Amino acid sequence: MTLTTFLEVLAILVGALSGFAEARNKRMDLVGVFIVAFITAFGGGTLRDILLDKRPLFWVLHQEYAILIAVLSLIATPVLNASHKFLPQRLIVIADALGLGLFSIVGVSTALEAGMPVFIASMMGVITGIFGGVMRDVICNEVPMVLRDGRPYAVCAFAGCWMYLAMQYVGVPSDFSLWVSALSITAMRLVTWAGDIRLG
Amino acid sequence: MTLTTFLEVLAILVGALSGFAEARNKRMDLVGVFIVAFITAFGGGTLRDILLDKRPLFWVLHQEYAILIAVLSLIATPVLNASHKFLPQRLIVIADALGLGLFSIVGVSTALEAGMPVFIASMMGVITGIFGGVMRDVICNEVPMVLRDGRPYAVCAFAGCWMYLAMQYVGVPSDFSLWVSALSITAMRLVTWAGDIRLG
Amino acid sequence: MTLTTFLEVLAILVGALSGFAEARNKRMDLVGVFIVAFITAFGGGTLRDILLDKRPLFWVLHQEYAILIAVLSLIATPVLNASHKFLPQRLIVIADALGLGLFSIVGVSTALEAGMPVFIASMMGVITGIFGGVMRDVICNEVPMVLRDGRPYAVCAFAGCWMYLAMQYVGVPSDFSLWVSALSITAMRLVTWAGDIRLG
Repeated sequence: MTLTTFLEVLAILVGALSGFAEARNKRMDLVGVFIVAFITAFGGGTLRDILLDKRPLFWVLHQEYAILIAVLSLIATPVLNASHKFLPQRLIVIADALGLGLFSIVGVSTALEAGMPVFIASMMGVITGIFGGVMRDVICNEVPMVLRDGRPYAVCAFAGCWMYLAMQYVGVPSDFSLWVSALSITAMRLVTWAGDIRLG
Repeated sequence: MTLTTFLEVLAILVGALSGFAEARNKRMDLVGVFIVAFITAFGGGTLRDILLDKRPLFWVLHQEYAILIAVLSLIATPVLNASHKFLPQRLIVIADALGLGLFSIVGVSTALEAGMPVFIASMMGVITGIFGGVMRDVICNEVPMVLRDGRPYAVCAFAGCWMYLAMQYVGVPSDFSLWVSALSITAMRLVTWAGDIRLG
Repeated sequence: MTLTTFLEVLAILVGALSGFAEARNKRMDLVGVFIVAFITAFGGGTLRDILLDKRPLFWVLHQEYAILIAVLSLIATPVLNASHKFLPQRLIVIADALGLGLFSIVGVSTALEAGMPVFIASMMGVITGIFGGVMRDVICNEVPMVLRDGRPYAVCAFAGCWMYLAMQYVGVPSDFSLWVSALSITAMRLVTWAGDIRLG
């Protein structure tokens, strides 16, 4: 298993985890838990691929990811209830920040390969990073958290995407710029979260 | 008119009917009634075709179905008001269960023809069967019923899709397995509904 | 700048403006303001292009429109707060009616060029005209205004689309029928709004 695959799976698990938590809050049943987790984990990338007209979709190529979420759904509610005091908020935020960074940079690089102009590519990166959570909140009948809590989240993704675009422009090797910018997004998110920095 | 066409039209009418009922509850106007009914009847199949990148869409090939819903929208509200005591809940549940079975199995077989792996194909079946109702509830600003009421609904569709996949795998003729699995979904839904069986 | 481009930009600005207003009402942050404005301005056309499988999308070809909305988002909240008494409701309704007419007729003509049957083409026109607002309201956790307030809005778009289709059928030059039907939608909307006419 390569490092990329490892982080990809981690990002999906984190997405699913936040879906499990939201579905539990809404007192959903087993089916609701699976669907909300699935949408949270894959919604952003799926929307990006639909906008780019790219097929097959990510989770169609890797049906093992969908199966993984289905299996986890079966055990999510009891485990989450039991682990409540062992799963600190801090850990979830860290994992989520890793997912935000990775998904966003995969999104911007996919869009760039598909020939998108740079501003659109940066938007595709942000869409990939945040729209899983937006769809989760819409289906759970909430105003999406990312649109209203004032904490830098999409803004971190946006800044990191432009860091990636700038590094590509000046000729930095693709692998290196991918990792640096993804981790920069994660770092920006964690620093602003820890410092409780808010936008106006 | 073949039996398939007859059941297809029945499934669409049932979808539209549940859209009419929901739109009336939300006190929507004529346009709202049409749009909600349309989304309920065609939303699941449309999402499936977008995910599979399949065109033209089902309702584009059959514009008579869209016209039918438009005409019904004009008379839906007065008729629903008048027929309140003549349209028992039981009848709606039976028709809806028929629609769930038919749409789900059409969905899984379409996905299989499009070369999807089996688990993804079963998910496409469930998506086709339930997402019309999910979209109806999202646009009506409700947490989707199918995600939270604990009654086996998506689970029946999922089980029936796997029955279809298994019968295809062992070489049962396609037409026969289609009908048996679609009716099995309908039967599972009706039995669990009548027995008030709920998932955890 | 041609008249078409001018009206196109005007329609986008009006869509964005109604997104800014809604996002402010929901106390969204900067990111929310941008995303809601973007979805309102481009949601209808994007959904139409996805349903027609048409790429590249409108706003991908014109990334300057997306940049424009991003820049306006930065100044929208303070300007809207300051201009509250200088931006009468009447002006917004007029601009929005212009946008409705233009978007709807562009939608129906795009669908017709893509080979859609006429009733579907008229629906694509209405979708293009109204679904930006529908998505804005869904993401802001409201039942979409256009589905429930009883004022002729989608109905005006629908009537204008059929006027365009009829003029195309009898051989009226395309440019002329486009302008006449777009302005007719605008006029119908304004007259019914001014007269407070409501559907049942």
